[in-house]
Amino acid sequence: MKYDRSKIPSVTVNRLSIYYRYLERLIETEEGRNIKTISSYEISKKTGINSSQVRKDLAYFGEFGTRGIGYHIENLIDILKKILKSDKEWNIILAGAGNIGKALAQYEGFRKRGFFIKGIFDNNPRKINEKIDNIHVYDVKDMGKYIRKWHIEIGIIAVPENSAQRVADIMIAGGIKSILNFSPVHIKLSPEIKLKNLDLSVELESLTYYLNL
Amino acid sequence: MKYDRSKIPSVTVNRLSIYYRYLERLIETEEGRNIKTISSYEISKKTGINSSQVRKDLAYFGEFGTRGIGYHIENLIDILKKILKSDKEWNIILAGAGNIGKALAQYEGFRKRGFFIKGIFDNNPRKINEKIDNIHVYDVKDMGKYIRKWHIEIGIIAVPENSAQRVADIMIAGGIKSILNFSPVHIKLSPEIKLKNLDLSVELESLTYYLNL
Repeated sequence: MKYDRSKIPSVTVNRLSIYYRYLERLIETEEGRNIKTISSYEISKKTGINSSQVRKDLAYFGEFGTRGIGYHIENLIDILKKILKSDKEWNIILAGAGNIGKALAQYEGFRKRGFFIKGIFDNNPRKINEKIDNIHVYDVKDMGKYIRKWHIEIGIIAVPENSAQRVADIMIAGGIKSILNFSPVHIKLSPEIKLKNLDLSVELESLTYYLNL
Repeated sequence: MKYDRSKIPSVTVNRLSIYYRYLERLIETEEGRNIKTISSYEISKKTGINSSQVRKDLAYFGEFGTRGIGYHIENLIDILKKILKSDKEWNIILAGAGNIGKALAQYEGFRKRGFFIKGIFDNNPRKINEKIDNIHVYDVKDMGKYIRKWHIEIGIIAVPENSAQRVADIMIAGGIKSILNFSPVHIKLSPEIKLKNLDLSVELESLTYYLNL
């Protein structure tokens, strides 16, 4: 399986996660245990992504579907797992022990998908040394040290707007390579760092846009 | 300003929100008060979206930039505000008073952008009739009634996977037109309903994909 990771659009990667999740659930069901193959049409019906898109997304990684029969489910799961590196566990850190940070610390979905928050970082003395869902809250001043100690590559930013850039800079200096940013502000980073912005009100705004067409 | 809303890709709409937010902040600064126009290059530098993309996104809504001078800032803000309907306030409802739901109920960013959560709905008797950040938690059984009473068009789903479809069905039956779904499961809806899925672990997975290329 040869392909150039950097050439795959991030929207495709997002959809691969969705296919992967659906197939994993499928094989846990009675129905799923009794079938060996699945068509792009069936994947489409269950994920809401149209079937030509499904075929196009999977074709990036080689021709492993068979016309008229579809994809071998176990095979497809193995491939997606490797592509998405879901066979690995990831230690991550979280900056910000506010409402969003707390919810993320307690979010079961991360653990289920192999993401473990090793530490939470905040600058509020009342929060430092507390625990959220058994995860220790450290002083943000020590964040660089722990990133290096734990060899962390992924950080989540859930701090107020005016601290986001500073926190990102500490993360990068410590060795973080990818950031998921919940703070509604543009963070400037060098281009080799992968940044994903998740501004919750932008998501809502994109819905109002389509109301009352 | 004539354009067909349904023809504008949702990624463009997301970027419009980002431009709008940046410009709003800009005019609150000393620097921003002293300038009248802004170039796509400058918008690009501050939002991280490349300048040809900025021009392309704004061109959907007519030719209101001037070559060599850029966009008239106040004019651009007015236009974006209308396009994004940010001149309106939106009442929304939230299903799910778990960790994510609680964080969303307390999220300042929504109020700042004109989104007001009128009610939270849950099926847990210990949560019903409580308040989260002054928002009442109602029995999910009454959700349809309140959607009609309050004329709500937007709902947020933050319930466990196995209740997501049922909750979405109640929302739609009540009259909701757009759903922001935090539950990591595909919800089946008729095509006229606008659905946006925000699966937090999918977002993290898309970051690991690019690590160690």
